Amino acid sequence: MAYSESQIEGRNAVMEAFRAGKTVDKLYILDGCNDGPVLSIKREAKKQGSLLRYVDKERLDQLSQTGRHQGVIATVAAYEYAELTDVLAAARESGEPPFLFLLDGIEDPHNLGAIIRTAHQAGAHGVIIPKNRAVGLTATVARTSAGALNYIPVARVTNLSRTMEELKEEGLWFACADMDGQCMYECDLRGPMGLVIGAEGEGVSRLLKEKCDYQVSIPMKGKLDSLNASVAAGVLAYEVLRQRDYSKKA
Amino acid sequence: MAYSESQIEGRNAVMEAFRAGKTVDKLYILDGCNDGPVLSIKREAKKQGSLLRYVDKERLDQLSQTGRHQGVIATVAAYEYAELTDVLAAARESGEPPFLFLLDGIEDPHNLGAIIRTAHQAGAHGVIIPKNRAVGLTATVARTSAGALNYIPVARVTNLSRTMEELKEEGLWFACADMDGQCMYECDLRGPMGLVIGAEGEGVSRLLKEKCDYQVSIPMKGKLDSLNASVAAGVLAYEVLRQRDYSKKA
Repeated sequence: MAYSESQIEGRNAVMEAFRAGKTVDKLYILDGCNDGPVLSIKREAKKQGSLLRYVDKERLDQLSQTGRHQGVIATVAAYEYAELTDVLAAARESGEPPFLFLLDGIEDPHNLGAIIRTAHQAGAHGVIIPKNRAVGLTATVARTSAGALNYIPVARVTNLSRTMEELKEEGLWFACADMDGQCMYECDLRGPMGLVIGAEGEGVSRLLKEKCDYQVSIPMKGKLDSLNASVAAGVLAYEVLRQRDYSKKA
Repeated sequence: MAYSESQIEGRNAVMEAFRAGKTVDKLYILDGCNDGPVLSIKREAKKQGSLLRYVDKERLDQLSQTGRHQGVIATVAAYEYAELTDVLAAARESGEPPFLFLLDGIEDPHNLGAIIRTAHQAGAHGVIIPKNRAVGLTATVARTSAGALNYIPVARVTNLSRTMEELKEEGLWFACADMDGQCMYECDLRGPMGLVIGAEGEGVSRLLKEKCDYQVSIPMKGKLDSLNASVAAGVLAYEVLRQRDYSKKA
């Protein structure tokens, strides 16, 4: 997972970056500059939670790479998604049975970051996220992943269901978390596996659930139905790790 | 854990609530009201992240319980902390060996809420938090706990170390998460137990660590040192649950 930052200068270019849905991490604005276009840019920056810095002309000239900043310079995050083949290659290199995470519509960037961190620490070989109805790799995700984004490949696919079909041909089995499933301590989770984690609230969508080979449940002794999405992912991931590395084959 | 909301009306009373560190969830302000005291109140509300609503005089009169709102009405969260004896009583009633969480300086309300939710779902009997250097039970904590705050007692103590001494006399053993500790899958976690969870980054403080009977580690296959605090708490809590309910006594 490569992460790089690029700099965008000038009012139109910066506004365009916001419109294109790019993640603007930092925004430098000429102190005292308050005309219409700059106000629009500031509004977008506040909406997205970009870090705003008011600087004087000297500092802005210094930062500028083009010499034509028009009072506005933005730092934009650029993440490179991995290909599905990279994810499978990472699994193959490890010499272990493949262990992947498929995230079905996780919308909270803190949850996504925490899940990517957990996936890496629990020994998963890659994370697959959908292009639609889900958060992508924003600066918040990178920060919450505590650096894991640099170590574990994250692939983004158009159609999770089709990706599952492809991975089944590669020998993977799929398990999803479902409160009506079989208790995870009684399932064998040691084979080549894709763990499907659903969005908070809605859980795994029906279509994907039907494609899963197992439905596993986390036992709940409390009065609620579920755990926070990233906690549930962690508990499941570590049960896979425990069975693989700390239990004897039956 | 009882949660209730109370309404505070009038400029001085609302300002006083902010000064006293109370959690103002919602703030209704008379639209167009912009004098000094109201501006101060708005500043405090923004600092605390209270939900601000501008309403007309009619609506405000309707909301008012005292008839003397002076253009400002606030909704304040009121949580009742449990006593340590309540927590022990909850454990005794369950008929299981006591299982408590002690949180050492968790500052992020989302983490605290998620941990309280996890503790309840994993069958813990109570959560103990310190009065200082930690977040209390705010509205955000209540929301992130997804309602668990209503089911599991949360006690707040002045001195966690002294509380550990008291609980040791009640027969509890303490385990803290520490990356240099013994692998959790190789520890016996079935007895009466307090699980000490440290703050993100700093971990469990030295003083408390020295008071712990065990130091247990979560195996890490990735390149980072740790997991998100609430994920780590979840993974440990479920290992306790697994050993207690799903493994045969040796």
